Amino acid sequence: MHKPFYRDFKLGILGGGQLGRMLVQSCIDFNVRTHVLDPDPLAPCSTNCDIFVQGSFQDFETVLDFGRQVDMLTIEIENVNVHALYALSAQGVAVFPQPHVIGLIQDKGLQKQFYATHGFPTSSFQLLETGSDLSSYSGAFPAVLKWRKAGYDGKGVQLFKQQPEQNWYTDRPCLLEQCLPIQHEIAAIVARNQDGACSIYPLVEMVFDPKANLVDYLFSPARISDSIANEINKIALAIADTLGIVGLLAIEFFVDTNNEVFVNEMAPRPHNSGHHSINANVTSQFEQHLRAILGLPLGDTRILSPSVMLNILGQPNHTGLAHFEGIEDILGISGVCLHLYGKVKTAPYRKMGHLTIIDEHIDQALSKVEQIRKRLKVVSAENL
Amino acid sequence: MHKPFYRDFKLGILGGGQLGRMLVQSCIDFNVRTHVLDPDPLAPCSTNCDIFVQGSFQDFETVLDFGRQVDMLTIEIENVNVHALYALSAQGVAVFPQPHVIGLIQDKGLQKQFYATHGFPTSSFQLLETGSDLSSYSGAFPAVLKWRKAGYDGKGVQLFKQQPEQNWYTDRPCLLEQCLPIQHEIAAIVARNQDGACSIYPLVEMVFDPKANLVDYLFSPARISDSIANEINKIALAIADTLGIVGLLAIEFFVDTNNEVFVNEMAPRPHNSGHHSINANVTSQFEQHLRAILGLPLGDTRILSPSVMLNILGQPNHTGLAHFEGIEDILGISGVCLHLYGKVKTAPYRKMGHLTIIDEHIDQALSKVEQIRKRLKVVSAENL
Repeated sequence: MHKPFYRDFKLGILGGGQLGRMLVQSCIDFNVRTHVLDPDPLAPCSTNCDIFVQGSFQDFETVLDFGRQVDMLTIEIENVNVHALYALSAQGVAVFPQPHVIGLIQDKGLQKQFYATHGFPTSSFQLLETGSDLSSYSGAFPAVLKWRKAGYDGKGVQLFKQQPEQNWYTDRPCLLEQCLPIQHEIAAIVARNQDGACSIYPLVEMVFDPKANLVDYLFSPARISDSIANEINKIALAIADTLGIVGLLAIEFFVDTNNEVFVNEMAPRPHNSGHHSINANVTSQFEQHLRAILGLPLGDTRILSPSVMLNILGQPNHTGLAHFEGIEDILGISGVCLHLYGKVKTAPYRKMGHLTIIDEHIDQALSKVEQIRKRLKVVSAENL
Repeated sequence: MHKPFYRDFKLGILGGGQLGRMLVQSCIDFNVRTHVLDPDPLAPCSTNCDIFVQGSFQDFETVLDFGRQVDMLTIEIENVNVHALYALSAQGVAVFPQPHVIGLIQDKGLQKQFYATHGFPTSSFQLLETGSDLSSYSGAFPAVLKWRKAGYDGKGVQLFKQQPEQNWYTDRPCLLEQCLPIQHEIAAIVARNQDGACSIYPLVEMVFDPKANLVDYLFSPARISDSIANEINKIALAIADTLGIVGLLAIEFFVDTNNEVFVNEMAPRPHNSGHHSINANVTSQFEQHLRAILGLPLGDTRILSPSVMLNILGQPNHTGLAHFEGIEDILGISGVCLHLYGKVKTAPYRKMGHLTIIDEHIDQALSKVEQIRKRLKVVSAENL
C-alpha cells in the first residue's frame, strides 16, 4: 500500500457532495490524492478532486471497480453499496469506516436496536414492516415515522400528531419513534483512529428550520450545563468505542425539558454540524476524519472562537441556475467565512454552501445571522 | 466577464508553487475556477487547480495566450513577463496586482528608489550597473549586494563584510545596501481592494535561518511595542496606498537596535510570512488576496490564537524523492496544523510544506518547534 504524504497514496471517496468537497480540501494539505465516485457529473467534488468517476455508489460492480483503483476507501454519504465494501475489505482494500459500521447506521431500525441493546438512552420506538398498519404501533403520540433506509435531510420522515383516523399503511420498512419535548438539540463529533484513540469536539447546538426540516444554524459551544455536556460526551465516546468505528462519527442528541439526554441518530462521517470547525477550531472535522482513517494521531479539537454556522439554502420556489443575491454585501460583515459548494443549480432548500460567523459573543453572531438572512438569497434567474 | 461565485469565473494564476496551491484552496470556497501556468509539470498546483498549463510565465507569447483564456489574471510569483501583462491589460483582461506594481517590485533598485522618493524609511543604498566595480560603492560596510532582478530566497544575495581586497565586478545590475544592526525582522501583510479599502494583519516576527537564508520560523503577534507596531502599520498602509495596489502586499521591515524602523523589501502577493493566517486568523491571506482582487469587501484579519509558523525544509545534502521522517510523530503534538505542498522531490532547504503551531503561549509553541525540529526531517531515500 502507498503511504499518505507522498502524493501517490490514493484515497477513494464514495459520494461527491459538499462533504466530499471539503474532505478533498483537507487531503490537499496531507498530499493525499483523491478519487471520487458520484452519479452527478456536476457534483461538488467534480472540480476539485484528482480523479472523478461518474457512477452510482449504490451499484455493487461500480463500487467494486472503483475501490480496486485506490489504497483506501471512505465515504461522505452512508447510503452506499455495503456488500461491495465487504467484498473489497475481504480483498485487502482498507475501508474506513468499516462496512459493519456503515451497514448498521444505514438502517435506522438497527441503529435504534443498537442503542437499546447497549443501554444508550434513546426515545421509545417500534419497527414496522412494509405494509403494516400504523394502528399496530403501541407507543404514545405524537410520533415520527422514518424510513429505516435511504431517508435523507427530511426525505422519508413524517410526523403523526395522533393515530390517523383512517388506516395508514407503511410502504416500506419503517421506524416509529415517540416524540420528546425537546429543549436542546446537540451534536457531538467524535473521532476514533486505528489505535482506538478517541477525541471529541466541544458540543454544538443545532437550531432547525421546521419548514425545510434541515439545520438552520448551529452555534458552538452549546449553551448547556457542564453536567449535561459531560453526560453527552460520555455517551458519545462510549458509542464510538462500542461500534469500534475508525473515522469520524457525528451523533445527534436531544435534551428534553426535564434535562434528560437521548441519542437521536448518528452518521459515520463528517457532518453538517461540524462545519464550523474549519474556521473556529484548531483541527477541522475533515482533517480529523483523515487523521483517524490514515492511522495518524488525532488533532486538537479546541475551539479558537465561539461561532455560528449557517447553511446557505436555495430559496423555496426557485429551481434552476443559481444566483447568489447579496453575497458581496454579506462578505462585508465582520467575521463571516464563506464556503460555497460549487453547485451550479439551486432548488428549494438545497444546500448551496455555508457561512461560519466567528464572534466572541454568540448573541452578536446571532444578530449577524439575522442580517445575513435578510440580505443573502439563493434564487434562480428563471424564477425572478 | 463572468462573475465569481458561479463556477464559470476563471482566475488565471502565473506560477504554480505552494503560494498558488494555497490560493487555489481558497478559490474552491468562492466557486472560482483556476487556470495555472508553470514550467514544472509536477508543480504544487498541478494536482489541485482546474486547468494546469505547462509553460513559462516569463515568456511573452505564453503569458499572452494563457491570459486570454481567463477572466482575471493574478500572480503567485513576481518574476513574470510584465510586458505581456501590460498587453493583456490593454486588451481588457483584468490583471491584479496591476502590471506597474509588479514591474516596480520585480526590480529591487526601483523598489528602493520608490521608498526614497516617497520618504519611506529604508537603509542607505547605491545602484550598480553591470560590470561596475564594488569600489565605486561609497557607503559603509558591512553591505549586502542583491541582484536587482530575479533574486529569490537567498539566490542573488551576497554579504560583504568589508570592501573586497581584490577588484570585484558585478555581473548584472545590482543594489548594494548598507547592513543595519537588526533587532527584529517584522512582516506586515496589507490588502487593498478595488475600492481602495485597506486592511492589515497583526504584525508577525520572522526568525531567519542564516545557513538557508530563509525564514526559519515566525511568530504572531510580533513581540514589539505598540508604538513601533503603530509606526510600521502606518508606513505599510501608506505604501499600499501610494502604490495603488489591488491585491495583497507583504512588506518586510527591520527594527534596528535603536528601535528605528526601516522598510526592507516587499512582495505583491501572498507571502511565506502570512501562512499562519490559514489556521490562526479569521481570514487567511489567500482568501484576503482573492477578496481584494475580486472587488469584494476585505475580510477580518483578527488573530484567533497566537501561533508559530515553521517552514518544512529539505535537509541539506539530500536531493531526490522526498521522505518525511517523523511526520506521523509530530502530528501528535497538540496544536500542530500541517500543510504539505505536494512536492515529490526534495532538495537542500527546499520548502516542502509548513506547520502552524496554535498555542496561547508563544514560549510553549517555540518549545514545540524545538521538538519538531529534532523529529521531523525531509530526507531522500537516495541519500540515506
